[in-house]
Amino acid sequence: MKTGERRIRIALDAMGSDTGCEVVIRGAIRAARELGDGVEIILVGDQPTIWKTLEAEGPEALPLRIAHARQSVAMDEKARRAFRNKPDSSIAVCASLVQSGRAEALVSAGNTGAVVTTSLLSLGRMRGIKRPAIASVVPTSEGQCVMLDVGANADCKPVHLFQFAQMGRMYARLILDIGNPRVGLLNIGEEPSKGNALSQAAFQLLSGARDQLNFIGNVEGRDIFAGKADVVVCDGFTGNVILKLAGSLASFGSRAIRREIERSWTARLGAILMKPAFRGLARRLNYEEYGGALLLGTRGVCVIGHGRSSSRAICKAISVAVRSIRSNLEDSIWQVVESDPPLPLTVES
Amino acid sequence: MKTGERRIRIALDAMGSDTGCEVVIRGAIRAARELGDGVEIILVGDQPTIWKTLEAEGPEALPLRIAHARQSVAMDEKARRAFRNKPDSSIAVCASLVQSGRAEALVSAGNTGAVVTTSLLSLGRMRGIKRPAIASVVPTSEGQCVMLDVGANADCKPVHLFQFAQMGRMYARLILDIGNPRVGLLNIGEEPSKGNALSQAAFQLLSGARDQLNFIGNVEGRDIFAGKADVVVCDGFTGNVILKLAGSLASFGSRAIRREIERSWTARLGAILMKPAFRGLARRLNYEEYGGALLLGTRGVCVIGHGRSSSRAICKAISVAVRSIRSNLEDSIWQVVESDPPLPLTVES
Repeated sequence: MKTGERRIRIALDAMGSDTGCEVVIRGAIRAARELGDGVEIILVGDQPTIWKTLEAEGPEALPLRIAHARQSVAMDEKARRAFRNKPDSSIAVCASLVQSGRAEALVSAGNTGAVVTTSLLSLGRMRGIKRPAIASVVPTSEGQCVMLDVGANADCKPVHLFQFAQMGRMYARLILDIGNPRVGLLNIGEEPSKGNALSQAAFQLLSGARDQLNFIGNVEGRDIFAGKADVVVCDGFTGNVILKLAGSLASFGSRAIRREIERSWTARLGAILMKPAFRGLARRLNYEEYGGALLLGTRGVCVIGHGRSSSRAICKAISVAVRSIRSNLEDSIWQVVESDPPLPLTVES
Repeated sequence: MKTGERRIRIALDAMGSDTGCEVVIRGAIRAARELGDGVEIILVGDQPTIWKTLEAEGPEALPLRIAHARQSVAMDEKARRAFRNKPDSSIAVCASLVQSGRAEALVSAGNTGAVVTTSLLSLGRMRGIKRPAIASVVPTSEGQCVMLDVGANADCKPVHLFQFAQMGRMYARLILDIGNPRVGLLNIGEEPSKGNALSQAAFQLLSGARDQLNFIGNVEGRDIFAGKADVVVCDGFTGNVILKLAGSLASFGSRAIRREIERSWTARLGAILMKPAFRGLARRLNYEEYGGALLLGTRGVCVIGHGRSSSRAICKAISVAVRSIRSNLEDSIWQVVESDPPLPLTVES
């Protein structure tokens, strides 16, 4: 750690993942090694369990700490009920560490609904933001793009989509290093008149700030993977359906190709020769490479990992949190929402 | 043709496709050969052009006829404007052939919006159907499923989704030969409480007819390709986004794998050996195999082909139209909507 540089503290939910506490802790150890002394990871969960795993893994002196949480939230628990009834859950303790300033970010691969609800209710929305949104990175032919919302708001208003564009642009700039990200509105046709009531109204709003947002207009389903836009804006229902669909494609593709291979020995031989290429492709399609989704618009950074995260994915999720903090993503979003071209006054809020 | 069997007449829009008139006509010739004497195909469009192509192809005596249409609708024309200003377009002439009983079905690979609008306005809705929907067949790990609506209704009400379930079930039964099709509601979680306002209300409606519809509850994005349901019900906005996304995956996958292959000669050799397997997979993912989308809920059969249809795809689309007529799909839908468990009276219409 350079002298004078503030140490970043990450509150990591050690309990919620589908893959188990050990995998999460191994991810934390990996991240601590990679990120060095400038980052401290607080493992939040049942202290004896965490301690046992840490001992078994026998890590050298690493900037890891434990914060005890006597409860944990199961994957199928209702978010609001968990928030009400489990004030000492690992997610709630993570959020309170952030809220009280003892950590800058919360990382969890647990129950997404519970993570979002707890973050929203404990940390609160950023001033000026009407609806926080979950942003997720998606691979494209050209590289990657960020899509939001992918699940925090099933029903949206046009103004929410406008703010998603502002937040997503900042994400693409600071986290994906894209100089002037192109913003596209997910729709079912290119023309402004296409779409449902929501997308038509959102198109009007976004067009009003075309230059500031680098708004390129409507993008369709086929344009997402083609990399036509760097930021794809949509309501949380459509975004979530797409994200889950896209996440299932690698396994659908590999099952389908396996069935074809079974029919001939030359194809089987070919598959053996192509193994490294397939592995490379799988890596590109793998959510683990993208380090989890970021909840944008709350106070404090919140990264939501995939429930089936490997230790590599946990490590990536921690890196994304660190990157968000170092790049001042939160402040930048706040500034753009405050100072950017204001919404037309007639817009419903 | 067996004695006493009625000859089926298909009005085929020869002009609208992106791939050109020749491809459509070759598709018609192929269909006429495959389907035999029981089906007559009426090629609708510019008579001299069609005649020239037919002569060049030099087909034997086949049950093909020409109906002249002096106008055609371009791909980027607005649907309603085309309907108003081009009463003699090939699409309009096809529809009027069906409307007047001189054909039983309309098949077009032209401007989808124009085909839907023209069909709705000329043929009209089936009695009892609130909103006709476009049903499209999607490949799954287990076989195939039918998804609707994929684009006719960007904004839907719960009762529309209920009728989509009724129509989609009949489609799966009669066209896909599935005995008791499982109906799933596309949503962003499994529990009834999940989703947006529309899907929550639709869940309640569908649950009220769980047995009659074989309603299996909510299905998520990942479940579509996994083949969890035989009928996937959704609003036309979400359905259209998904359909276009799914349609782009084969090319995204092949571009991505090609990039991986370039890195090693063993992988290149492997790819050569695997060529037949890749071709088999591409065939499974290819929309041509599925013969176009069917507009359900109008009077008269209407099949919408892909704008970039090959002659094989046109032939398939004609077969789907013939199958719909022979299986009495229209009447069956009408009966189920009339006699099936009526909607709760309190439902808004």
